Amino acid sequence: MPFTYNRSVRFQDTDAAGVVYFANILGICHEAYEESLEAAGIDLKAFFSNPSVAFPIVHANVDFFRPIFCGDKLLISLIPQKLGEEKFEIAYEISLAYVIVAKAITRHICIDVSSRIKQELPSEIVNWLENNRRDTEEAERRKAREIM
Amino acid sequence: MPFTYNRSVRFQDTDAAGVVYFANILGICHEAYEESLEAAGIDLKAFFSNPSVAFPIVHANVDFFRPIFCGDKLLISLIPQKLGEEKFEIAYEISLAYVIVAKAITRHICIDVSSRIKQELPSEIVNWLENNRRDTEEAERRKAREIM
Amino acid sequence: MPFTYNRSVRFQDTDAAGVVYFANILGICHEAYEESLEAAGIDLKAFFSNPSVAFPIVHANVDFFRPIFCGDKLLISLIPQKLGEEKFEIAYEISLAYVIVAKAITRHICIDVSSRIKQELPSEIVNWLENNRRDTEEAERRKAREIM
Amino acid sequence: MPFTYNRSVRFQDTDAAGVVYFANILGICHEAYEESLEAAGIDLKAFFSNPSVAFPIVHANVDFFRPIFCGDKLLISLIPQKLGEEKFEIAYEISLAYVIVAKAITRHICIDVSSRIKQELPSEIVNWLENNRRDTEEAERRKAREIM
Repeated sequence: MPFTYNRSVRFQDTDAAGVVYFANILGICHEAYEESLEAAGIDLKAFFSNPSVAFPIVHANVDFFRPIFCGDKLLISLIPQKLGEEKFEIAYEISLAYVIVAKAITRHICIDVSSRIKQELPSEIVNWLENNRRDTEEAERRKAREIM
Repeated sequence: MPFTYNRSVRFQDTDAAGVVYFANILGICHEAYEESLEAAGIDLKAFFSNPSVAFPIVHANVDFFRPIFCGDKLLISLIPQKLGEEKFEIAYEISLAYVIVAKAITRHICIDVSSRIKQELPSEIVNWLENNRRDTEEAERRKAREIM
Repeated sequence: MPFTYNRSVRFQDTDAAGVVYFANILGICHEAYEESLEAAGIDLKAFFSNPSVAFPIVHANVDFFRPIFCGDKLLISLIPQKLGEEKFEIAYEISLAYVIVAKAITRHICIDVSSRIKQELPSEIVNWLENNRRDTEEAERRKAREIM
Repeated sequence: MPFTYNRSVRFQDTDAAGVVYFANILGICHEAYEESLEAAGIDLKAFFSNPSVAFPIVHANVDFFRPIFCGDKLLISLIPQKLGEEKFEIAYEISLAYVIVAKAITRHICIDVSSRIKQELPSEIVNWLENNRRDTEEAERRKAREIM
């Protein structure tokens, strides 16, 4: 099964139009990424605060299918994918009561923080990518069998 | 027992100093308030999105005792108190591994949204105030007995 | 000339990695959109707070070319384009000392707020789109002549 | 004259109640502080990103007198004051068309970042405090003379 993260929409996420401010959905997706890293045993403080290796986002996109309101109980599912030796991307599906309300992607590169030069993904991230990938593929195979 | 809310510190909560941006702690406290209202059966969408009665914050304050980092597992406890027919305040204690790292207060008035004139607290909020108050007092009495 | 907006990067825009949090660049682009609407004589309070017609974002994307730091003086240039009777998009270029550091797009539909049904773009937005388009095309023609 | 900072209220600053989300006013005050430091010749990137000395906020409070809407043109005036060898505070007045809509205070201590131990305020901050103080006192004396 892909990794999933439950998130209630907060008053702070909304704007004067009464729905979630568009850019905040990307922040909610990043929370799902953080939860997924932590579930894989990665220490978030070391990973995000003053590390020697970092994974800045070089591209992000998001599509909205329905308005999202304060109090809505979102489920974010996350599927990461390796894109090369120095790059990966994460696809997110944001759903509400089994209906997809938004989809997003973040693309990350691996850099040495002091030089800001690209470098190979370290083993803890390669493992995280492989484990999440395998879980997702197994879930898809299972689903395909159920359909047959 | 006072109402409590568990909250992981997110990358988005931090700033370039490597710790939580000060104003974000007040946003985290407001999340605890939202969770507490929902636990009392209040519908957050109706309460916060385009209601006829609202509870704007007229005062807030926060004290910081220790730096708070990405990944920290905060526990926010919340004690609300009625301050008159049209007003209440909420005291928050933010702790990390049983150590208090910050304290905050928000003070709210009740207004009619269209006229923005003050009005009496509605029964659902009066009940929420009383129930949270009673739970807290009972916990304090219990604690006092344990000490004796 | 395309509409431009000057924006200093704030401490609050940054995260523990020491650079701008990725989703905040989209918020900065939205500020440029607000400034551009206001420059066209549109009243922002009426436009954004409780209007009968709204322009929710249905798609956004952003590409980052360089890290952006606290105190950086960004220049955001904005080119909107009509995409049909009910839709428009805005392309943003974010530059720092004449170097493009990021690019973004937001795509908007026009809806009736109470029914949330799509409707034709109102004349004030059609005018805003045409004026910004013409200014940009003139600037491009001028630039092309200078090159020849 | 006290240092002043002009700030339009952005859509992102608002929430589903149609007004500025309370904690965001403190963020706007911090922007005024950043502008004031920069006006004194302090390099914001060096000051806020990975410095050896930092000025974390240990207390903040804010009072709201009127609702603040998207598009409102705020004027924030800022009066800093030294509170000892290792501490200062800043008082902010937020006004709209000459009417005060909110007031806030942030209290800062000076620390060595690696040890997080308190230390004396460095000369650039002492100078900034003295210059802002003197400008404010002169303005107050001038105002007093005008009244007499």
